[in-house]
Amino acid sequence: MVKILAVNAGSSTLKWKLFEMPAEQMLADGLIDRLGQAESSVKIKYGDQVYRSGHAIRNYHEAVADVMTELKDLGLVTHLHEIVGVGHRVVAGGEEFSESVVIDPQVLQDIRALKDYAPLHNPVEAEYIDVFCKMMPWATQVAVFDTAFHQTMPAENFLYSIPHQYYEQYGARKYGAHGTSVRYVSQRAAEFLGQPLAQLKMVVMHLGSGSSVTAVQNGQSVDTSMGFTPVAGVTMGTRSGDIDPSLLQYLMRKLKLTNFDDIITMLNQRSGLLGISELSADQRDLEAIEDDDPLAKLALDIYANRVAKYVGSYAALMNGVDVLVFTAGVGENAGEMRARIMAHLQFLGATIDAEKNQARGKEVNVSAPDATVQTLVIPTNEELMIVRDVQDRLPQA
Amino acid sequence: MVKILAVNAGSSTLKWKLFEMPAEQMLADGLIDRLGQAESSVKIKYGDQVYRSGHAIRNYHEAVADVMTELKDLGLVTHLHEIVGVGHRVVAGGEEFSESVVIDPQVLQDIRALKDYAPLHNPVEAEYIDVFCKMMPWATQVAVFDTAFHQTMPAENFLYSIPHQYYEQYGARKYGAHGTSVRYVSQRAAEFLGQPLAQLKMVVMHLGSGSSVTAVQNGQSVDTSMGFTPVAGVTMGTRSGDIDPSLLQYLMRKLKLTNFDDIITMLNQRSGLLGISELSADQRDLEAIEDDDPLAKLALDIYANRVAKYVGSYAALMNGVDVLVFTAGVGENAGEMRARIMAHLQFLGATIDAEKNQARGKEVNVSAPDATVQTLVIPTNEELMIVRDVQDRLPQA
Repeated sequence: MVKILAVNAGSSTLKWKLFEMPAEQMLADGLIDRLGQAESSVKIKYGDQVYRSGHAIRNYHEAVADVMTELKDLGLVTHLHEIVGVGHRVVAGGEEFSESVVIDPQVLQDIRALKDYAPLHNPVEAEYIDVFCKMMPWATQVAVFDTAFHQTMPAENFLYSIPHQYYEQYGARKYGAHGTSVRYVSQRAAEFLGQPLAQLKMVVMHLGSGSSVTAVQNGQSVDTSMGFTPVAGVTMGTRSGDIDPSLLQYLMRKLKLTNFDDIITMLNQRSGLLGISELSADQRDLEAIEDDDPLAKLALDIYANRVAKYVGSYAALMNGVDVLVFTAGVGENAGEMRARIMAHLQFLGATIDAEKNQARGKEVNVSAPDATVQTLVIPTNEELMIVRDVQDRLPQA
Repeated sequence: MVKILAVNAGSSTLKWKLFEMPAEQMLADGLIDRLGQAESSVKIKYGDQVYRSGHAIRNYHEAVADVMTELKDLGLVTHLHEIVGVGHRVVAGGEEFSESVVIDPQVLQDIRALKDYAPLHNPVEAEYIDVFCKMMPWATQVAVFDTAFHQTMPAENFLYSIPHQYYEQYGARKYGAHGTSVRYVSQRAAEFLGQPLAQLKMVVMHLGSGSSVTAVQNGQSVDTSMGFTPVAGVTMGTRSGDIDPSLLQYLMRKLKLTNFDDIITMLNQRSGLLGISELSADQRDLEAIEDDDPLAKLALDIYANRVAKYVGSYAALMNGVDVLVFTAGVGENAGEMRARIMAHLQFLGATIDAEKNQARGKEVNVSAPDATVQTLVIPTNEELMIVRDVQDRLPQA
């Protein structure tokens, strides 16, 4: 038995989970929030207990030191070197990384060089990787990319219809996101059904605060709704998804904006469910009031129909579909939203059972008895996928 | 019997067709090209004959005078007042116009006011309308809007997922285009099948140099792939169709552009088949070389899969589809491209017959005998639809 850490780092947060492997048992789930502020918060769930603390954590070094101290203090490890591997979530892997890799100086440099593709994420993640490598030098450090699973997309699906030279020169193409989640969920779905992944046409709906829809054929991503960045695709909590670029030109004139960056900020932060409803980015808030609030209802209808349209488009892309899978916060828990989406998809033979569809947060086949396309709810587990990837890359004992 | 003129005006071209109504017989098909240049060209097809002329036509007044003179000289009319009506194609009708209308000063002012939605088209069209009203004051002048047919779209389909105030304040929404074509084609398709339009779920693929896909339910447009402007949706000859807006931000930086308008110009003029292939905007050119030219093949594959994905998405939107219709230059004539698109859609039950699919430019059901979804080719006729709308609005005798 060995211990492996999965790390998900942001500019002001550090999330981590500790697993015992190969048992795949999660030992602890930690979060540092408000890093860099006067009082940062620390919360660690382990077993049935919760540890909380508030103290200043000024930088990434202090954050990692904090995690190491608490792992020891809470008895999660006896010696820190029990942690033989650390897996780092990295948002953008470009075309360089089509699978998880053991980190060396060249890999770290490549992750930094990909900052154009994820300006808010890759630089922070690279810094944390550097710190972890220095502070836990005995552990195998592995980078796990959100985009890697989608590198199997064929060119006809990942290219935009713009001058080809922009792909050649600047890497202008679709990269997608949520790849680690979709990889986990599609494997689990096949296991759950007892059918070989290699023979299934699957559409995975990862619906959370960010959302994407992915076509998975023969276990490989063949198309996905997020694009060059995660702003594209379906309607999300605060992100717009797809939009006519000329409308943005028009809005710049109307709003007297000279910097296109302001438009992109609007599309990322003030759009989606929040923008349509003028109220909330959370579908639960909107469901609670939709009977009395036309904009709340409209936001939910738009959300559902954009997801359903992507499912239909991927059924066309693959010339059919065998399995639909819901995952992530909304997909796992929001039975009402699932039903709203599935109302569009009966023509595929994907009818669901209202009773089974009450399920929240657990693996379940919600299909009606007569369904010819199976609809599953599969809770995602990106961290488990990350530590599995680390385990597969540990040096042979 | 009366004569009605259908007019389609651009900044340097004036296209017109003369019909005898209600017989719906086209008497002549005229084109003025290179207006404002040293030598403009005039071409009029009538009966089995073609009239050609080259002379300077300096402005819109001269263009209309030229048409009037030739109508008389070629014996297409004995007296000009035989032309009792003129129908004008107008690109943008906004939310103001959900059907064709007899033009009065207020309508003309409204068309001008909608210039934000079609800066290259509405101002020119308004000028021509003004000239025709002055020079043929006895005729009923009717505006026929490309967008009008799509005004039946429900809000959940015409709204983007951006702050709702931008719709309220600036009309930021999907308007679509090709409405007159889709209205004609969907009506003809139902007649052709001998089935009531009101009971059909139809997807119309208008594939020309500009292309759109429209979901028609109960004879009404419920969603369409073009957006606020015609740059959105599927891959076209030179237009990109859908694209991640953040990619445009990235390209502006890489190309060192400061004006977003330059990006929109690129998406309209240097993208689509032309951009991907780096060769031609015409699918025939690409089909001729695709065996030896990977980018030509890629462009065609992308074109087909974007159209097929929209068809799939609209099947989901309507929870099923009964009829698929191909129309416009590519849709009517390019059997190879139709087959390429339909290869994705067998799962719908929309199989086609390879022999029947050889058809070019005529009404034909190309479905295989076992097809459960019918696939038709229906040549479009926007001008006929325009003169019908004029006829319906003539003052009662």
